[in-house]
Amino acid sequence: MIYSDYAATSPMSEIALDVYQEVARDYFGNASSLHDAGGKAKDILERSRSMIAKLLYTEARQIVFTSGGTESNLLAVDTLLRASRLKGRKHVITTEVEHNSLYYFMKDLAHQSNIEVTFLPVDQNGQIHLSDLEKAIQTNTCLVSIQHVNGETGVIQPIKDIGEFLQDRDIPFHSDMVQSFGKIKVADLIPLVDSMTISSHKIFGPKGVGAIYFSKKLSLTSHPVSTNHEHGLRPGTVNVPGIAAFAAAASETLADLAVNQVHLQNIRNLFIRKVKSAGIPLQPIITENQCPSIIGCVSDFVQGDYVMLEYNRHGIAISTGSACSIGATELPKSIQPFITNLEEGKRFVRFSFSHHTTEKDIQDIIETSDTIFKRIMEERQGYDKKVNG
Amino acid sequence: MIYSDYAATSPMSEIALDVYQEVARDYFGNASSLHDAGGKAKDILERSRSMIAKLLYTEARQIVFTSGGTESNLLAVDTLLRASRLKGRKHVITTEVEHNSLYYFMKDLAHQSNIEVTFLPVDQNGQIHLSDLEKAIQTNTCLVSIQHVNGETGVIQPIKDIGEFLQDRDIPFHSDMVQSFGKIKVADLIPLVDSMTISSHKIFGPKGVGAIYFSKKLSLTSHPVSTNHEHGLRPGTVNVPGIAAFAAAASETLADLAVNQVHLQNIRNLFIRKVKSAGIPLQPIITENQCPSIIGCVSDFVQGDYVMLEYNRHGIAISTGSACSIGATELPKSIQPFITNLEEGKRFVRFSFSHHTTEKDIQDIIETSDTIFKRIMEERQGYDKKVNG
Repeated sequence: MIYSDYAATSPMSEIALDVYQEVARDYFGNASSLHDAGGKAKDILERSRSMIAKLLYTEARQIVFTSGGTESNLLAVDTLLRASRLKGRKHVITTEVEHNSLYYFMKDLAHQSNIEVTFLPVDQNGQIHLSDLEKAIQTNTCLVSIQHVNGETGVIQPIKDIGEFLQDRDIPFHSDMVQSFGKIKVADLIPLVDSMTISSHKIFGPKGVGAIYFSKKLSLTSHPVSTNHEHGLRPGTVNVPGIAAFAAAASETLADLAVNQVHLQNIRNLFIRKVKSAGIPLQPIITENQCPSIIGCVSDFVQGDYVMLEYNRHGIAISTGSACSIGATELPKSIQPFITNLEEGKRFVRFSFSHHTTEKDIQDIIETSDTIFKRIMEERQGYDKKVNG
Repeated sequence: MIYSDYAATSPMSEIALDVYQEVARDYFGNASSLHDAGGKAKDILERSRSMIAKLLYTEARQIVFTSGGTESNLLAVDTLLRASRLKGRKHVITTEVEHNSLYYFMKDLAHQSNIEVTFLPVDQNGQIHLSDLEKAIQTNTCLVSIQHVNGETGVIQPIKDIGEFLQDRDIPFHSDMVQSFGKIKVADLIPLVDSMTISSHKIFGPKGVGAIYFSKKLSLTSHPVSTNHEHGLRPGTVNVPGIAAFAAAASETLADLAVNQVHLQNIRNLFIRKVKSAGIPLQPIITENQCPSIIGCVSDFVQGDYVMLEYNRHGIAISTGSACSIGATELPKSIQPFITNLEEGKRFVRFSFSHHTTEKDIQDIIETSDTIFKRIMEERQGYDKKVNG
């Protein structure tokens, strides 16, 4: 199989698997227990926290571990809101292109609580405008939440500009960096956000583990479930083996980040070039700022799910969008700037690569694409003949 | 080390470790992805769901996987409340002895929402009274949440009686069975509850995995974060390797449940007998209905944390209570029926056993207890002499 759905999930690295095994076997204590079995687990936990902190050029104390990207986002936003609520501010700004989990959480927030939520639109490049953000800000805006990299199109939001703009205005800023962490550099953005979230299984760590970075300058109130885990911010026995494996995978992945980023850029360029030169009827979504791991494409004909299943039949795993939104009837807002009508939107497919993707994989994908679309076109011609002739 | 803190956490069984490794390596796809890599993960997920369902004599459809016991409890209660809210009912009944996570969640619910919460007291046996429950019920009671087994004292609540009583009144009933599942039989209680929760790491499965059983008769509304995972009830990429390992551990543990329960009962009886015959100054909390895996004790002198550290120094891991509440200043309500004053409460320690605990372990614990308390008594006598003489 040529796995090209790394934006959905990735396999655990051998190092991560080994670390998981070792910690689960030899350091199984509850990290909150005060005996040696607990203390040893706590040591591993804190060493893992330091490892993740180091990758983000921050201090261990600023990292909170969770059960994954979704929980990280919801807990980060909830924690920031709890801190803000004390000050009576009740307006939140986010975007129309957030990951489903945050988007619907915000929709529910607007619906259930007495919180007003502004959803910023994106321009023809899929990016939000600083001027739109500026216009949206109210005196009681207590949170801005904007993703770093979009999971469908790879579009990179101008986090640096947004962060600087919001720092001047003293408005807490959260950024979902699940799709960018381990693919492009995020560490230089950390001083500009108040919180950011990452997920283990997107970067060759175990599923069921994620983390939040919270800025030192925040004064956070503890979780309603008074807990002694994770600085009081997250209840539930801490998954130390998973966290240790996450830290190992993250360190491994980020050690070669610069090299991998160049490799991904080359893979992406090769894919785009070959699609064009081979005349594959796929239109890659190309715009100014994109993460090289993700290439959304609109096929010239037949629906995305059919295309995806054809690739699958030929041993290539791709996606029709975020795995978390499969079955959703609405088109993701993120692809709307790049299509002219609903029908085009339904023909969307996503290829997503990692540093394990080789030029040979791309070559094979192109050859398979040629086979798939030739057959589709032949069938269509036969169909057209039957209907028209 | 003689690990006697199984109520806090347990090591993963070798079978669970193997299953984790195999699934993480060979079936790493996102279970929501529609290609074969996703499909294979989905198959493992559904097989694991069927395994857990079978152990509870229910159908796979009724099981929702989560990131652990705490999330299971909070999500179960939240899901039941969302279903109830539609009907405008706003009164919840729970107990004073729930696990911290649920207790504080309920406290917060009462504080934040317009929901009224009644906390039932326990009697001299640590149990709640059906008559107290009956008195507490209002016309708008929408949920009763009562734990099965208490984590500090092992006291078993009369879930069967409560369940039958509430079924007649059509009030949803949740029970936290994290401490009982895998230790005593819970399957026969399933028809009497509307939801119940279990945790993987308490029964030799991985940390970071739990499950909720929801009764078929409930009409549940989906999670606010419209999700395609876990029947729409829980967002976040599903941790398939962890879930598969959990199902393996649960099947393994419950296969020998009857035998293990007898073994645990023998271990408990042996411990109690030996403590008495050896004149160890520990008073085991013994009452009518207790889970044999947990024995709370009050030492005749010196504080629990000192006792715990002494055992630790001698290679025996015990606890001063729930690992989730270490550092809490309040005494758990669960031990209050068994003490006469605050000082006694501070001298509480907990031994908790599993089917891996041997008679030899108990013999060693008793010998070590003798050594520890002899030294403590000698020191105290020296201290008394110094002060008084």
